[in-house]
Amino acid sequence: MHTTIPLPDWLETLNRQSAPFASTRDAMAFVLAAASHNSGDGGGPFAAAVLDANLNLVAVGVNRVVAAQGSILHAEMVALLLAQQRLGSHDLASHGHFTLVTSCAPCAMCLGAIPFSGVQRVVCGARGEDAEAIGFDEGDKPDSWAQKLIDRGIAVELDVARDSAVAVLAEYRERGGVVY
Amino acid sequence: MHTTIPLPDWLETLNRQSAPFASTRDAMAFVLAAASHNSGDGGGPFAAAVLDANLNLVAVGVNRVVAAQGSILHAEMVALLLAQQRLGSHDLASHGHFTLVTSCAPCAMCLGAIPFSGVQRVVCGARGEDAEAIGFDEGDKPDSWAQKLIDRGIAVELDVARDSAVAVLAEYRERGGVVY
Repeated sequence: MHTTIPLPDWLETLNRQSAPFASTRDAMAFVLAAASHNSGDGGGPFAAAVLDANLNLVAVGVNRVVAAQGSILHAEMVALLLAQQRLGSHDLASHGHFTLVTSCAPCAMCLGAIPFSGVQRVVCGARGEDAEAIGFDEGDKPDSWAQKLIDRGIAVELDVARDSAVAVLAEYRERGGVVY
Repeated sequence: MHTTIPLPDWLETLNRQSAPFASTRDAMAFVLAAASHNSGDGGGPFAAAVLDANLNLVAVGVNRVVAAQGSILHAEMVALLLAQQRLGSHDLASHGHFTLVTSCAPCAMCLGAIPFSGVQRVVCGARGEDAEAIGFDEGDKPDSWAQKLIDRGIAVELDVARDSAVAVLAEYRERGGVVY
């Protein structure tokens, strides 16, 4: 038995990105472009990528909640799953140092998923409140969520290219995208 | 593009269960048998099922974190994904009233996933502390996690067949299963 999660073909092209990023800010620009593209192709306005210690792309994921009929299919979850499948382990930390770059701060579910994934650094674009401002439910997160990751040895960078990240959310709202 | 999550063939057989359960306690016995079977077949000692309002099985999932190389592949997440795919919607609430029966109280990730899934009732066997007692990391959950679900209109029943649920965890530890 198996289950299959359909993903857009253009995501496969993005996943072939082979040159390392010059910086996590450059990776964020790549992630935001993926989020914008996804938002215009039946997905939510969210994307996330896993990078290795040299800023090579391991995997990029996008939100396919509505399109693929799965409430767990947030961008971070898809990116972590693709990265772990690519490396052949449920624990990225066993393969080195990895960073999760996400177009928006994680919701309660993705926040819970991060410590189990083995990533050691999280870089966020928009804030959760920016997603809530256009109607998305971010779940019940403690105010101190970033500190709780830091307490587990996971570095956190917030508000990276936040203005551009918020613009992707605004674009989705203007398109009349489904909010959940 | 797509990604495939491999699942055991015996899980497909379990998913064909067509007679409704007589009670959620009977459903819990079914879920605990699935968890025990999974624990002896490369999976973690966890299972979960989604039931409709008449206690018919919609889908049963098991923990395949190590076997399928995905830290998000907790039993609840697999069960929710299979149920939503079967019903063709990311939001179970749009199809009626659904219950999640889980062999162990949800970790932080699965707790975050529950409100987004559309289930309106959660029935738990073992406590999170029972899973922690054999070494599993349940993540950072608020002490008031059940109340937070109730505040969202999701009913919660705890300690259903807890002794039997704890026995499944103990069996896994005795087998020397991987803990994460």
